[in-house]
Amino acid sequence: MKTLKIPEATITRLSVYSRFLEQVDRKGVVTISSSEIAEGVGVSPAQVRKDLAYFGEFGTRGVGYNVKELLHQTLKILGLNQEWRMVVVGAGNLGTALCSYRGFRERGFRVVGIFDNDLTKIGKKIMDLEVLGTEKIPEVVKEKDVGIGIVATPADAAQETADILVKAGVKGILNFAPTILNLPEDVEVRNVDLSVHLEILTFNLRVERLKKMV
Amino acid sequence: MKTLKIPEATITRLSVYSRFLEQVDRKGVVTISSSEIAEGVGVSPAQVRKDLAYFGEFGTRGVGYNVKELLHQTLKILGLNQEWRMVVVGAGNLGTALCSYRGFRERGFRVVGIFDNDLTKIGKKIMDLEVLGTEKIPEVVKEKDVGIGIVATPADAAQETADILVKAGVKGILNFAPTILNLPEDVEVRNVDLSVHLEILTFNLRVERLKKMV
Repeated sequence: MKTLKIPEATITRLSVYSRFLEQVDRKGVVTISSSEIAEGVGVSPAQVRKDLAYFGEFGTRGVGYNVKELLHQTLKILGLNQEWRMVVVGAGNLGTALCSYRGFRERGFRVVGIFDNDLTKIGKKIMDLEVLGTEKIPEVVKEKDVGIGIVATPADAAQETADILVKAGVKGILNFAPTILNLPEDVEVRNVDLSVHLEILTFNLRVERLKKMV
Repeated sequence: MKTLKIPEATITRLSVYSRFLEQVDRKGVVTISSSEIAEGVGVSPAQVRKDLAYFGEFGTRGVGYNVKELLHQTLKILGLNQEWRMVVVGAGNLGTALCSYRGFRERGFRVVGIFDNDLTKIGKKIMDLEVLGTEKIPEVVKEKDVGIGIVATPADAAQETADILVKAGVKGILNFAPTILNLPEDVEVRNVDLSVHLEILTFNLRVERLKKMV
């Protein structure tokens, strides 16, 4: 299958394209060229065409892409033509921030449960959710058909948490704890390391400084 | 200059290599081959060699790389051979989480100030920092030689916040607010959208499902 070899950078750009297409669609634009998409998101037109070509032929030569159709296709490719239900484990500052993160809801990701094993946190309300003890994870995952678990615990609790989530039936894990998780092969895991973003920033700042020195 | 055209994916991997080299160095390993780095981080040996070649010749054929030397070079390339002082604007859950984010400190990023314009938050202690009013930003940025500002405000306050930070002398902005910032060209901006991580996860989950259907 062709879609199996897509580079992650392409998927990331596809996610950016779909956001841009949503904006354009809201403005009532009907068709759009690859150059217009390219300009809107800051990549080359050739890159846009190459990325979209991974998924088949969408556009009409000389006319461009139908905005609604392309948006629909990109969302479908990203698996966003459905709502994804998620639970967050760890009701500290990060877990609380994630529960109320607007960007998730806008893209169809809904947090339906938050858990902690700290008795001072259990029973607290975050948004419209009550913090539950971690022993309730299996029940909530099953009842609410949860596909994704977010690990927002300290590093030393992350593996145990992920094991509980996987046993409960979660298929994907987004891990914010600074540790590598060992999980079965059929579980998708993504580690979020916020300092990588800072390192790309400092790399670019360093390059700017070098440019000025030339 | 050669370093100016490095793809972002390479910089991200460089960041991963340097973490791996830190681990290996702590174990007392003296030399390492590109295959060992590749295996340790889960990319191909050819990719490792290609990435490192962007920055000149580090290794010795048949011997491999000196771990300490390669680690030093990668940190230098990433701009991490110095401490970066940062301020966080927005003392909500996200800002609070960022102040105590261990991954930052481990890579030489130090939060030296946190600000908010909410009177109920000003004066509160987060880690060893007191939340200050946003009018104190210019003073702190100058006194503490701050290079990076983190925007953790709601979307509607983000542009104003970024303008204050830039005017105060910050050179890089890490933006967590779901909005595009308009800033001078010589300021490096990086937008963090946490839902992109989820979308790569759901893309992969979708592909897994398709594989099972084949």
